[in-house]
Amino acid sequence: MSHISSSASSDAARFIKERVRTVEDWPQPGVQFRDITPVLQDRRALRTLIDLFVQRYIDANVNVIAGMDARGFIIGPILAYELSLGFVPIRKKGKLPYKTLSQSYELEYGSATVEIHEDACKPGDRVVIVDDLVATGGTMMAGKILLERLGAEVVEAAAIIDLPDLGGSKLLRDGGLPLFTVCEFAGH
Amino acid sequence: MSHISSSASSDAARFIKERVRTVEDWPQPGVQFRDITPVLQDRRALRTLIDLFVQRYIDANVNVIAGMDARGFIIGPILAYELSLGFVPIRKKGKLPYKTLSQSYELEYGSATVEIHEDACKPGDRVVIVDDLVATGGTMMAGKILLERLGAEVVEAAAIIDLPDLGGSKLLRDGGLPLFTVCEFAGH
Repeated sequence: MSHISSSASSDAARFIKERVRTVEDWPQPGVQFRDITPVLQDRRALRTLIDLFVQRYIDANVNVIAGMDARGFIIGPILAYELSLGFVPIRKKGKLPYKTLSQSYELEYGSATVEIHEDACKPGDRVVIVDDLVATGGTMMAGKILLERLGAEVVEAAAIIDLPDLGGSKLLRDGGLPLFTVCEFAGH
Repeated sequence: MSHISSSASSDAARFIKERVRTVEDWPQPGVQFRDITPVLQDRRALRTLIDLFVQRYIDANVNVIAGMDARGFIIGPILAYELSLGFVPIRKKGKLPYKTLSQSYELEYGSATVEIHEDACKPGDRVVIVDDLVATGGTMMAGKILLERLGAEVVEAAAIIDLPDLGGSKLLRDGGLPLFTVCEFAGH
């Protein structure tokens, strides 16, 4: 996929970025939250968004799409379906009912844990991990580690939005996980 | 849609039901949890599942698909995309960043609250609400009330699994919300 930029730069990507809503001071004062719900509820924007991901992975020889709880559950399954692949959820601790592997990661204050079913992937699977947004990159990296513990190869992480000033995209790339995003926003 | 049964009864539905995994004693002793992840991660099963929902609503003159946090986020967006509709998330309290309406509902012990963005629907919208499973029906009914407070008409609730012994499907039908499910399991 090296012939495609790691960030979509096109009329389609601008169309999506224009529809991301910025909510000031949420979830706490000083934060500008990038809200994707206006993209999802606009049927043309949703089709355009999914096409960007489908075009990115249509020839990438991927056989599993993994999605991060909970906003990664919205885009990941559509991509899986459109590529005729299976979808694997990576969830917050305690949400998956069957036997799981767990992986903790650091937050600004404290830590959190994500889990995957132990039969979610098999050795040799080629996986793309999907979330809505990359901030610190901690959950995406934890997802990569879980998938690799199951023997899968994580081909790329994909998200709608990159917040490069929070360092997540650099963390992922430095950690061996290429990142594809549709648009980015400066600042926090 | 009255010419179609409210529960899919076909080879396709049996194919899906066979792939639902029963996890004993989760999340607590005595509960048989019906786990849809084996359906999602099987690419043939995922296609079959989505086709049942698409066939159900292809001519239903629906223009919005709403999904319940978080497993309803997996199926609902695929259905929205396949029907070229927008997708609206209904989330647990405190998860949506913009201006919201809230609706509480009763649980076995205590209560819970779900929210919707106030611009998620407009008067006259025709909506199908999607979740993975109907147990007591409380979240689905709360979702219906939220959508109606925005002026939308809720055409039907759709889920993969009905647990009729928990009374949810009866509650929904008695409350004026038809329910379409792919399969059902007796017991809790």
